[in-house]
Amino acid sequence: MIPSQVVNTYPLSSYTFGTKEPKMEKDTSVADRLARMKVNYMKEGMRTSVEGILLVQEHNHPHILLLQIGNTFCKLPGGRLKPGENEIEGLKRKLTSKLGANSPGLVPDWQIGECVAIWWRPNFETIMYPYCPPHITKPKECKKLFLVHLSEREYFAVPKNLKLLAVPLFELYDNVQRYGPVISTIPQQLSRFQFKMITN
Amino acid sequence: MIPSQVVNTYPLSSYTFGTKEPKMEKDTSVADRLARMKVNYMKEGMRTSVEGILLVQEHNHPHILLLQIGNTFCKLPGGRLKPGENEIEGLKRKLTSKLGANSPGLVPDWQIGECVAIWWRPNFETIMYPYCPPHITKPKECKKLFLVHLSEREYFAVPKNLKLLAVPLFELYDNVQRYGPVISTIPQQLSRFQFKMITN
Repeated sequence: MIPSQVVNTYPLSSYTFGTKEPKMEKDTSVADRLARMKVNYMKEGMRTSVEGILLVQEHNHPHILLLQIGNTFCKLPGGRLKPGENEIEGLKRKLTSKLGANSPGLVPDWQIGECVAIWWRPNFETIMYPYCPPHITKPKECKKLFLVHLSEREYFAVPKNLKLLAVPLFELYDNVQRYGPVISTIPQQLSRFQFKMITN
Repeated sequence: MIPSQVVNTYPLSSYTFGTKEPKMEKDTSVADRLARMKVNYMKEGMRTSVEGILLVQEHNHPHILLLQIGNTFCKLPGGRLKPGENEIEGLKRKLTSKLGANSPGLVPDWQIGECVAIWWRPNFETIMYPYCPPHITKPKECKKLFLVHLSEREYFAVPKNLKLLAVPLFELYDNVQRYGPVISTIPQQLSRFQFKMITN
């Protein structure tokens, strides 16, 4: 048998959560967001964004940490790379900005792992695809999702305007209406890993 | 930047297709199939099955080879392992049984690659999940999907009662109604690879 790659997963209770200053969204509407994307594309070309999948466990089942904005919208921690920025360094920067304490000594030593999915935005529209559609020579965004391997203990500082949720895989699976196409298929993308549930 | 893993993909036209004797399905209904699964489980324990994702390209877009039974039902080539059988050897045996020529010298030298997904069947029912659901201690089936790296030229012999289709990723994506949950999310599972389209 081929051993699956093992990912250590620690209980939610082994992590500590605090708060920090709010991180406001740059746009107040989808239309604003797409308009800003267009302006940036003209200046810098294709947008590259990176997001982290942070795993914890509860009741012997993997959960993913999601940031909730308002009452319904959830997203993975991450964001846009600066032009020419290294993907791994950029993801670490974004994770620190979203979830790291203001005191550098408390910021997790982010261990960025496997790329699990790549999504493409062919036009200045909300729809993305897990491939660059044929005949699209100039995609507008490429978004990469990476596993982030958490240590046994970490301190996360959550911006005051956001909530950090630990959402079980069984809640995400087949739930495109609530979580959208990118987040709702994370369970399928993680299925090839073996999660080693470590209890304290 | 982290290089994505590159998968060479050759045009459909570089492969040759013939036919061979029919491979009949063992069951004539879903109820029969689940009943046979139950009998086998009593004898041999959890069923382990392996399936291969064989990629070709057309119009610069990846296509997956699917076997069509009757007018609508499609499946990946593969099948059930014998008790204790090695996954890779078992998948090679199944691929040869489904798609290999009767003449051993013409059978492809199957290169089994990455495991891209694992699906679990918790009960003797059709529904499967990309994780073993919590509280399920005795799953009834574990199905693993592997990339199969095809050489530039191969000969495939298709059983006379089946059709071999090359289906583009954009047709599979978001098409659970036509292809079911396992096959319709293959595009997401393959998104992390970079397909190098080789033309003749």
